[in-house]
Amino acid sequence: MTSSNISELSDIYTLDVPDMDIWPKAEKILTARVSSGDIYVDWEDGRVSRFQALWLREQCPCIQCHSEITRETLFDITDLSIDVQAKICVLDADGYLIVQWDQDGHESRYHPGWLRANCYDDWARTGRETGKPTWDKDFEIPAFEAGGVLEDDDQLYDWLVALDRYGLTRLYNASTDTGTVEKVANRIGQIRPSNFGSIFEVVSRPDANSNAYLSVELPLHMDLPTRETPPGLQFLHCIVNDAEGGESLFADAFHVAKFLKQTAPEVYEIVTTVDYPFRNRALDCDYRTAGPLIRLDADGHPVESRINTFLTAPITHLPHDQLKKALEARHHLMRLVKEDRFRVQFKLRPGEIVAFDNRRALHARTEFFPNTGNRLLEGCYLDRDDLHSALNMQARRKRCEAIRKSEAT
Amino acid sequence: MTSSNISELSDIYTLDVPDMDIWPKAEKILTARVSSGDIYVDWEDGRVSRFQALWLREQCPCIQCHSEITRETLFDITDLSIDVQAKICVLDADGYLIVQWDQDGHESRYHPGWLRANCYDDWARTGRETGKPTWDKDFEIPAFEAGGVLEDDDQLYDWLVALDRYGLTRLYNASTDTGTVEKVANRIGQIRPSNFGSIFEVVSRPDANSNAYLSVELPLHMDLPTRETPPGLQFLHCIVNDAEGGESLFADAFHVAKFLKQTAPEVYEIVTTVDYPFRNRALDCDYRTAGPLIRLDADGHPVESRINTFLTAPITHLPHDQLKKALEARHHLMRLVKEDRFRVQFKLRPGEIVAFDNRRALHARTEFFPNTGNRLLEGCYLDRDDLHSALNMQARRKRCEAIRKSEAT
Repeated sequence: MTSSNISELSDIYTLDVPDMDIWPKAEKILTARVSSGDIYVDWEDGRVSRFQALWLREQCPCIQCHSEITRETLFDITDLSIDVQAKICVLDADGYLIVQWDQDGHESRYHPGWLRANCYDDWARTGRETGKPTWDKDFEIPAFEAGGVLEDDDQLYDWLVALDRYGLTRLYNASTDTGTVEKVANRIGQIRPSNFGSIFEVVSRPDANSNAYLSVELPLHMDLPTRETPPGLQFLHCIVNDAEGGESLFADAFHVAKFLKQTAPEVYEIVTTVDYPFRNRALDCDYRTAGPLIRLDADGHPVESRINTFLTAPITHLPHDQLKKALEARHHLMRLVKEDRFRVQFKLRPGEIVAFDNRRALHARTEFFPNTGNRLLEGCYLDRDDLHSALNMQARRKRCEAIRKSEAT
Repeated sequence: MTSSNISELSDIYTLDVPDMDIWPKAEKILTARVSSGDIYVDWEDGRVSRFQALWLREQCPCIQCHSEITRETLFDITDLSIDVQAKICVLDADGYLIVQWDQDGHESRYHPGWLRANCYDDWARTGRETGKPTWDKDFEIPAFEAGGVLEDDDQLYDWLVALDRYGLTRLYNASTDTGTVEKVANRIGQIRPSNFGSIFEVVSRPDANSNAYLSVELPLHMDLPTRETPPGLQFLHCIVNDAEGGESLFADAFHVAKFLKQTAPEVYEIVTTVDYPFRNRALDCDYRTAGPLIRLDADGHPVESRINTFLTAPITHLPHDQLKKALEARHHLMRLVKEDRFRVQFKLRPGEIVAFDNRRALHARTEFFPNTGNRLLEGCYLDRDDLHSALNMQARRKRCEAIRKSEAT
């Protein structure tokens, strides 16, 4: 966000909600009532929201409960009774929900737009669930004009949505100046430094501290599997690429996982639960970690892959029979990953930037031949946190603009 | 590591192992034999190690298998047969294990020290398991002289061991110059920047973007619970602290977790499995995540807490009955965290640095009164990755020195 965006938001920002977000008042409450201490809200569109009393009490936006400067919570949550109940609830003239609590007579006032955005009844929770589509060799990588992304917030938003959704995007018509990748990354957030620096140059060199800096073929992999949380985003900006070879390949680990689950559930079980160890090689640092090759969330959806075959460390925490099964399962998965049906392949052109989710879109490079020409990429990492924060901020900006527009008419 | 340390290591570093570590040759193999394709090693001390064939084949340190420049794996692991077997194994004149493989006749040579350090038989795995002690109000915080840690690698190592083990340490006799905390942090690794910058000043200010920058009491909490992986380390350097109040408190979330598990297992089950949402408040960024209040590893040991009561976000993913139980369980845990029996309390003096595991040692501050004096701390974050890498490098240095010493005698 530029500083002008920020001041636009502070302009419209109020103390009506327990955070610093902005919500439309378009959602209208018809009636509100108390039942067994919980609060029921009837919306104009016929939906009903039930708010559990303690849940709603904790979210009271008043300046005794949430700092008017930071909007962070000021009270001690354990000072509230877990059995707190609403005594009275009514609507005020602006359509806000007013609740008086039995415990201490405290009165809270809730913004209807905030209530609607945060309610959690079955219909609301279901509406919010969104699966991400996965892709294979026929994927047309979403492409965006670099200048538009750099200068226009709406184009930035569209790019971020695609990056979050597919984990693989291309930017075209970028400058071939060094430093370009940093400018693009800064549209999202802070670059995450590593032992390879903030901005790294992918070029063949004699003192390589990574296979990436040799000219050898790199199999499909992610970077920094040796870190507890590997970088969520990786950007590679092509500056020169006229050597023979050096084509780029990508595969969607989440798509491979889906296929594996269907075709070999017993292998899927192992690669999603066994901790496989990884370790970097260097004279000045020694990063190690272990994790499943595919990590699932509480609902069983893949959220992260940890796939890299040149930074593995020996498994030393399993007994023999489990160890053998773990090695076999990794073999099975890695053979699958290599299959043509999963991979898109192309040669990066100067002025192109490929931006991808390092924990989902595996990348590879065919061998290149330094004696036939040059190949130079500039790259950097960011965290998923920063992608999501940037997306949230752009969504906030769009809500802000919509509210202004509706107020102007 | 300073550059002189690094060159010391490259001096002794060889291509005998599939990484860049250093191992003593003191461990002597008496005999080696093949059985059902796996390799059995009889050690001088009577121990026996069994190495699964594929496991050992993957670790072949030769320069066809592992780059002589990067030591990263060069072959495609799926080109190895999962049924690869050892055909012959013998010891060479230097006591190394030589294995010839049936698949392609490839010959591998293994360093005995590396084999011993990485073997995984029941006796070896058991020997490696180390639990970390937890602490309560009677904890004497391990204290180290700041100058020693800055200048002497052995004192650095001792400090890092304590920091990793207890998650809470103090440094004394540090300078009160600004910039000191950065120097200390750089003994471990790269500072992790956040939306509060690389180095943050904890001081009461009117434009606060965190409750930390007000003068209010801060309840026991961790920083940045809003990030997928919150910083593993936090350092706070006391420069001035002559205002009334502003005492520091710490509690070991892993100790509280242990107590909770014994006294209320049903609550423990909820706080270790339900994802609780967190969200920061700011006009320029919007970080959100969700996770259990206590996260367990595969063996059921606490590895991370996510405890903060002023950056919570409303739970919107659970149905009513589960939501109520989740709120009640959090209440239960937070009441426990506040109990005197768990907390150490003291007032930081100028020239003191408190260094702690932000995901384990919860910290708090009593209210202070800016009209009675000044209070200024400088702080920064690092990742656990960097602590562990620094510890691994120091351990490597110590092995290196021991080998030199034994070779000199």
